[in-house]
Amino acid sequence: MTRRIPQIILALALSIPFHSLYSQNKSAFNGFDLVDKAGNISKPQDVRDTYQFLGTYTPTGSNGDTEMHVTYASPGAAQYYRKYGKFADGTVLVKETFMTDHASFTTGDARWATKTGVWFVMIKDSKNRFPNNPLWGNGWGWALFKADAPDKQVATSYKKDCLGCHVPAQSTDWLYVQGYPVLKSK
Amino acid sequence: MTRRIPQIILALALSIPFHSLYSQNKSAFNGFDLVDKAGNISKPQDVRDTYQFLGTYTPTGSNGDTEMHVTYASPGAAQYYRKYGKFADGTVLVKETFMTDHASFTTGDARWATKTGVWFVMIKDSKNRFPNNPLWGNGWGWALFKADAPDKQVATSYKKDCLGCHVPAQSTDWLYVQGYPVLKSK
Repeated sequence: MTRRIPQIILALALSIPFHSLYSQNKSAFNGFDLVDKAGNISKPQDVRDTYQFLGTYTPTGSNGDTEMHVTYASPGAAQYYRKYGKFADGTVLVKETFMTDHASFTTGDARWATKTGVWFVMIKDSKNRFPNNPLWGNGWGWALFKADAPDKQVATSYKKDCLGCHVPAQSTDWLYVQGYPVLKSK
Repeated sequence: MTRRIPQIILALALSIPFHSLYSQNKSAFNGFDLVDKAGNISKPQDVRDTYQFLGTYTPTGSNGDTEMHVTYASPGAAQYYRKYGKFADGTVLVKETFMTDHASFTTGDARWATKTGVWFVMIKDSKNRFPNNPLWGNGWGWALFKADAPDKQVATSYKKDCLGCHVPAQSTDWLYVQGYPVLKSK
């Protein structure tokens, strides 16, 4: 009888709903597992499979090309945001940029994502952990990875490489939250 | 000593990565929990928090309005698809349609999702479970829920209410898989 108890508990644990697991498991906000002592940021793995979707933006550049920018957050991020109105320390956001294609379907001409361009990674840092590292500041760690070398962080300064595009969103912690419906309602 | 074993196993179980949990837990493909004996389909809950993102399409209708159609899949769906080239029996897909807004940002004019219009729900049925139900056929169960009554299924016939838009995608099991990058690589 005694030997069966662990099996029962394992079975119970595996049947916990995913959203309960997210809220119970504090390691959902484990972004600093991706950061070494000097503040160097590694790219999170399995983002498409394990992160939650926040939203898509479709910017059209001056050359006429339309991209899709898809933002994912580490598990549990939106639930926390809806409760506290901000992202938890250690939350990881990943913005994957895509080239697009388009065609006419029965509901009209539609565009969709094709090849990945780059990944922007942000890690919420409420404690100003790396004041002397040029990739940390304004409450976040900032990183950039490109499709031709997806695990090589290539940004050198968040102010130079990242912040320009975020300035219009300064009042919402540098994020375009208006396009992320899950932050308002599940 | 014996009494500590369950705690240890529970701790181990809670530290299992989410993607391992998905692949081990067969209930990830539990779409038929949403279906009653007659084949009536209920809307899955917590989709934005717990499902995985497949892709976004941005159709522009004949009235010039551009929508965003965001498709989510039940947990583990993409991992299974990458392995077997098809969706598992019981997989749930949800397409949430959004109205959009747009504005000029530093990377160009960009569009984003605002209010939800409808949710289309599909449940993979490899066994032709409901041959006499007009909401089941072509390997799927089909359902439609609208934002003004989000839990009321309003489709009466998948051929009349759903299939028209899917005809161009017949060769890929009625789905526009070309816009779902996660089905090709994680």
